[in-house]
Amino acid sequence: MAHDKNAVRKILDAVKASGRTSLTAPEGKGVCDAYGIPVPKEGVATSAAEAAKLASGMGFPVVLKIVSPEILHKTEAGGVLVGVRTAEEAEKGFATIMANAKKYDAKANLLGVQVQQMLSGGQEVIIGAVTDPSFGKLVAFGLGGVLVEVLKDITFRLAPATKEDALSMLDGIQAGDILKGVRGADPVSRDALAGLIENVSQLVADFPEIAEMDLNPVFATKNGATAADVRIVCDWNPAPARYRPKHDDIVRDMNRIMKPDAVAVIGASSEAGKIGNSVMKNLINGGYQGKIYPINPSADEIMGLKAYKSVKDIPGVVDVAVFAIPAKFVAAALTECGEKKIPGAVLIPSGFAETGNVEGQEEIQAIGRKYGVRLMGPNIYGFYYTWKNLCATFCTAYDYKGHAALSSQSGGIGMAIIGFSRSAKMGVSAIVGLGNKSDIDEDDLLTFFEQDDNTHIIVQHCEDLKDGRSFAEVAKRVSKKKPIVVLKAGRTAMGAKAASSHTGALAGNDKIYDDVLRQSGVIRAKALREMLEYARAIPKLPTPKGENVVIITGAGGSGVLLSDACVDNDLKLMAMPADLDAAFRKFIPPFGAAGNPVDITGGEPPKTYQNTIRLGLEDPRIHSLVLGYWHTIVTPPMVFAKLVAEVVEEFRAKGIAKPITVSLAGDVEVEEAAEYLFDHGIPAYPYSTEMPVMVLAAKYRWARGAGLIK
Amino acid sequence: MAHDKNAVRKILDAVKASGRTSLTAPEGKGVCDAYGIPVPKEGVATSAAEAAKLASGMGFPVVLKIVSPEILHKTEAGGVLVGVRTAEEAEKGFATIMANAKKYDAKANLLGVQVQQMLSGGQEVIIGAVTDPSFGKLVAFGLGGVLVEVLKDITFRLAPATKEDALSMLDGIQAGDILKGVRGADPVSRDALAGLIENVSQLVADFPEIAEMDLNPVFATKNGATAADVRIVCDWNPAPARYRPKHDDIVRDMNRIMKPDAVAVIGASSEAGKIGNSVMKNLINGGYQGKIYPINPSADEIMGLKAYKSVKDIPGVVDVAVFAIPAKFVAAALTECGEKKIPGAVLIPSGFAETGNVEGQEEIQAIGRKYGVRLMGPNIYGFYYTWKNLCATFCTAYDYKGHAALSSQSGGIGMAIIGFSRSAKMGVSAIVGLGNKSDIDEDDLLTFFEQDDNTHIIVQHCEDLKDGRSFAEVAKRVSKKKPIVVLKAGRTAMGAKAASSHTGALAGNDKIYDDVLRQSGVIRAKALREMLEYARAIPKLPTPKGENVVIITGAGGSGVLLSDACVDNDLKLMAMPADLDAAFRKFIPPFGAAGNPVDITGGEPPKTYQNTIRLGLEDPRIHSLVLGYWHTIVTPPMVFAKLVAEVVEEFRAKGIAKPITVSLAGDVEVEEAAEYLFDHGIPAYPYSTEMPVMVLAAKYRWARGAGLIK
Repeated sequence: MAHDKNAVRKILDAVKASGRTSLTAPEGKGVCDAYGIPVPKEGVATSAAEAAKLASGMGFPVVLKIVSPEILHKTEAGGVLVGVRTAEEAEKGFATIMANAKKYDAKANLLGVQVQQMLSGGQEVIIGAVTDPSFGKLVAFGLGGVLVEVLKDITFRLAPATKEDALSMLDGIQAGDILKGVRGADPVSRDALAGLIENVSQLVADFPEIAEMDLNPVFATKNGATAADVRIVCDWNPAPARYRPKHDDIVRDMNRIMKPDAVAVIGASSEAGKIGNSVMKNLINGGYQGKIYPINPSADEIMGLKAYKSVKDIPGVVDVAVFAIPAKFVAAALTECGEKKIPGAVLIPSGFAETGNVEGQEEIQAIGRKYGVRLMGPNIYGFYYTWKNLCATFCTAYDYKGHAALSSQSGGIGMAIIGFSRSAKMGVSAIVGLGNKSDIDEDDLLTFFEQDDNTHIIVQHCEDLKDGRSFAEVAKRVSKKKPIVVLKAGRTAMGAKAASSHTGALAGNDKIYDDVLRQSGVIRAKALREMLEYARAIPKLPTPKGENVVIITGAGGSGVLLSDACVDNDLKLMAMPADLDAAFRKFIPPFGAAGNPVDITGGEPPKTYQNTIRLGLEDPRIHSLVLGYWHTIVTPPMVFAKLVAEVVEEFRAKGIAKPITVSLAGDVEVEEAAEYLFDHGIPAYPYSTEMPVMVLAAKYRWARGAGLIK
Repeated sequence: MAHDKNAVRKILDAVKASGRTSLTAPEGKGVCDAYGIPVPKEGVATSAAEAAKLASGMGFPVVLKIVSPEILHKTEAGGVLVGVRTAEEAEKGFATIMANAKKYDAKANLLGVQVQQMLSGGQEVIIGAVTDPSFGKLVAFGLGGVLVEVLKDITFRLAPATKEDALSMLDGIQAGDILKGVRGADPVSRDALAGLIENVSQLVADFPEIAEMDLNPVFATKNGATAADVRIVCDWNPAPARYRPKHDDIVRDMNRIMKPDAVAVIGASSEAGKIGNSVMKNLINGGYQGKIYPINPSADEIMGLKAYKSVKDIPGVVDVAVFAIPAKFVAAALTECGEKKIPGAVLIPSGFAETGNVEGQEEIQAIGRKYGVRLMGPNIYGFYYTWKNLCATFCTAYDYKGHAALSSQSGGIGMAIIGFSRSAKMGVSAIVGLGNKSDIDEDDLLTFFEQDDNTHIIVQHCEDLKDGRSFAEVAKRVSKKKPIVVLKAGRTAMGAKAASSHTGALAGNDKIYDDVLRQSGVIRAKALREMLEYARAIPKLPTPKGENVVIITGAGGSGVLLSDACVDNDLKLMAMPADLDAAFRKFIPPFGAAGNPVDITGGEPPKTYQNTIRLGLEDPRIHSLVLGYWHTIVTPPMVFAKLVAEVVEEFRAKGIAKPITVSLAGDVEVEEAAEYLFDHGIPAYPYSTEMPVMVLAAKYRWARGAGLIK
């Protein structure tokens, strides 16, 4: 639908010129008309006789509403009359409303009474838009009515929203089924509703000065959707967009920073216990093969390497400078980095915004921008890039290479990442501390890891997104290629920036993160350990080719709990076709249960596990397997682990790779079996029936979002 | 309120005599009147004139409804007219309804038209009752309307419900806030609603033949609550109550079974690999000090012990017989146990109901009942009672004594319990397999563990409760003394037994378990690992004296995630009083953050942790602590662990014991620190910010339910 931007521009200019921020109802209608947002027939009457005439013209019943820029809450002011059924009632109503309004606010300009076609029937919904400080314009959708307000059943998408986004909103609320028609009611027109959502989202995207918009209620029927009431609030000084370097520049600089050929250590030291010493040790002992330039004004040599007084004295090109000096010296050293054209500075020092030194941080940000030096931190542990054997950090060295790239906003969480990774032998490509995020942030990392072949999954802990809009845009693209997992900490309901509107008041900050992350194809982890387990398991799992999950279990009890977990995590337990059921039954005792779970029963020999798992991999209707192992003397843990690894290997050699996860119930030997399975690319968990399903479900969420299933 | 049981009895007798199961509206009204359930004024008209007269008498508007025992869905039949406003409309309405009803079902007996005062305003709610096969009579409460149907926002309690139960139902639905009045609406009368719930619950408890009851809608206002429509369905052959031994008999027998002085092993064997050999080995090597009697018809001695042909040949008293023989021999051997007056049989053999051999199971149940032999199993791994060094099982021996008593319905889950317990050094008092639960079930175990001083927490995995009503009654009592954790597997929505009513259709089986377990003071675990972690941690935690939780953290990032977890788990982060805030600030760097979390910042020495934790224990306004540790060189993991244990010990010696849990972020050394802390009674978790909060929250849930807080 073509939108008439000029018409909206004219209306907004007039509102601004009159010194107002809210639009009157007729102005709101004008905006809606220009953007294909259906509203009821209406007109403004300036006399009782005119009210009667207008009403008779559009057909009864009608609603009468006061028109006054000063009166926002019309009902409170006694400025609304619904269900007006005759010309006589319309005449009387005009007088009543004008009198009420005058009593409510004697100073208000009463421009007349709006006569509006009265809508009823269908389903009442709310469509609106808000402005979030991080994500910018968002479109909102929810059911109307007081109950929804109590339940906060509302969903958000970045504006502009695509048709697909808009349709997903209809299913994105808890009570979404009501739109499909219950108790014999007609289903609403999904097309009409989605179209309305799209138009609202395009409107606020086109006009950044529209801070908030409420269509409440919208009457949705099987034939269409009409906004009965329109509220638009403007902000004539919208926040400027955050500075973003160009994509190609980010890629170029981040590649030099993350995979440098030459590293300078500013504040390098020979003295044990100093951060500048730990960084040097980690670089050297970590096995980094590039050039290392220690910078120290009062040393000629540090740990066997020639030291320089300044980066400017280094003869060759430097890709990144790691700072291990007190905060107060950072600005000067950073300027030198700029003059030396070093593209990146890793700012380990604390003492900036996190301690209240906001000016100090702004100073280095300005220097970085001036010289084109990208800043990592400050207030970080540094970073690791394992495939270069690079430990640019004061923490302990880490060298277990793999394909998970992790980052954390907090140093403590970074240490937990390092500890878990080492303990669980989780191969990582990189671990990055982002700290105060004065410059480099999550979307810079996404942009780098997107094109980094050593990285197969990107996992990020964050407490905020300085530029959620940019993150979402990059994530939407990157998540099509590689899974992104985000642990968003700090789930307090701060509300969106401007919360004077109805929609705004319903906008819990965390709900927005939740919806936008999903819209961007991001897998959201709810807790730290969950994030870590996802990082470890997801890259091991092949991408499923379809939704059919089958559980094969030796322990009936595990089967039930695994089924519960599948339901909880939106995995589809395959309805077992009769022929496949019969095929499974051939391998299991007569009292075992086929169906799904396939319960092979507890006392079975290795062969039974083998046969059934083989069948599960063979049959193309099955897309994923969850195995439940029960420790017995007949099939001990390691025998089971080896047979599973063998069967999986056999099928991978044939080109058949399906995701398999394992739950192990047994005595402590199952821990060794789980480790063996993990080492062979099969995520396995002792004493847990939920984690094997959660990691599989996370892979599915990603694959669905990336459009790889169905 | 006194209830008129005789009146109800008379009505029900008449309904039964007429061969019906559903009550007509007037009969329903009669029942309501007898139990103090307010209903609108009404009368039945058998002519149009009478309808007009009745309506005029009670005042307009009125509702007209067909009265016919055959027509249950009146609206569908065109048998309802609402908003009848004049005598003339009433006359016409009578004719219309009678005609519609005849068209709908020509064979239906049309007894007339009910004329009813039309209620409106207030909040529409549903109150009802259902009969669950496990829990018996349940009362239900939810909001009215189609939206609630979509959201399934309804809550259940065992009937009869106390006033307190009834009040908790008003807060037990998602949308409960709406009853408090939103957008200027009046709050409803909580007393009136709770009273109505109580009366309904008493009614169905008094009359087991009332299978289902619907009051839908009930109009709740600030002054009262009136049921606008009543539906009652009877079942003239209600299921008989399950057989339950008397409490004292259970205690006597279970004590002999669980803590026997003499054990017979039926099917004892010298042959390695046989179950009867494993059981003998476990008894002997496990260190059991009581008498062991091997039973084997073809051996004189087994593992150095004199063998007997039958239990009847044993000279002394036997407390329990462990069965390690094939299913087909069980009945005969069990009869001998009965004749020997052995009070308990541990039935390891499989091959009963779980393989379809229901008759075999019924046979042994009958023998057990006849002779008063309590049956554990069949189809189980047996049981452990560590304080007697008793391993009456074919699994590996287990000897880490402690205070958690665990049971599982499934053998696989039992093995996971054993493995986790051993790996995590979780002290247990008992591990029990319940298998087919032909006799001994969860409430027998509760009854035993209630009075077992070695048990401080009771943890149960189950897939069903054969007698949920009895379990709930016992759990309600026991949970006042000891925490009970239940992992209920199998959360499919099977619905309550009779689901022809509105309330019934809303009754998901799992929702009933959820509500009744909560009503019984049980902590429900959602997943296997969660259950195990609760079992391990809860007994270590002192009972909190109040709701105020304070987080003290070295890692700001952990603090945020721990706060999130507190919100998610309904823990109250204490609002920090100014004086306490100032006291904390004295110990932490100026840029650290007091408030709650108390962020001591990352680089602090042991002293800072010490001082702040000490203050947290000292100040009586703080009731619980959650610590967030960040691994640094200044305060390494074991230094932290030791100082925490020391401070806690110091305060325990002074009689101050508050629950403390710890989250450890750091390199792998934090795993050792976590183990050390756990060994010193302080639940601690590496790489997890959720588990320390979840276990504390579980302790709180228990303490609140047991009335130990506030």
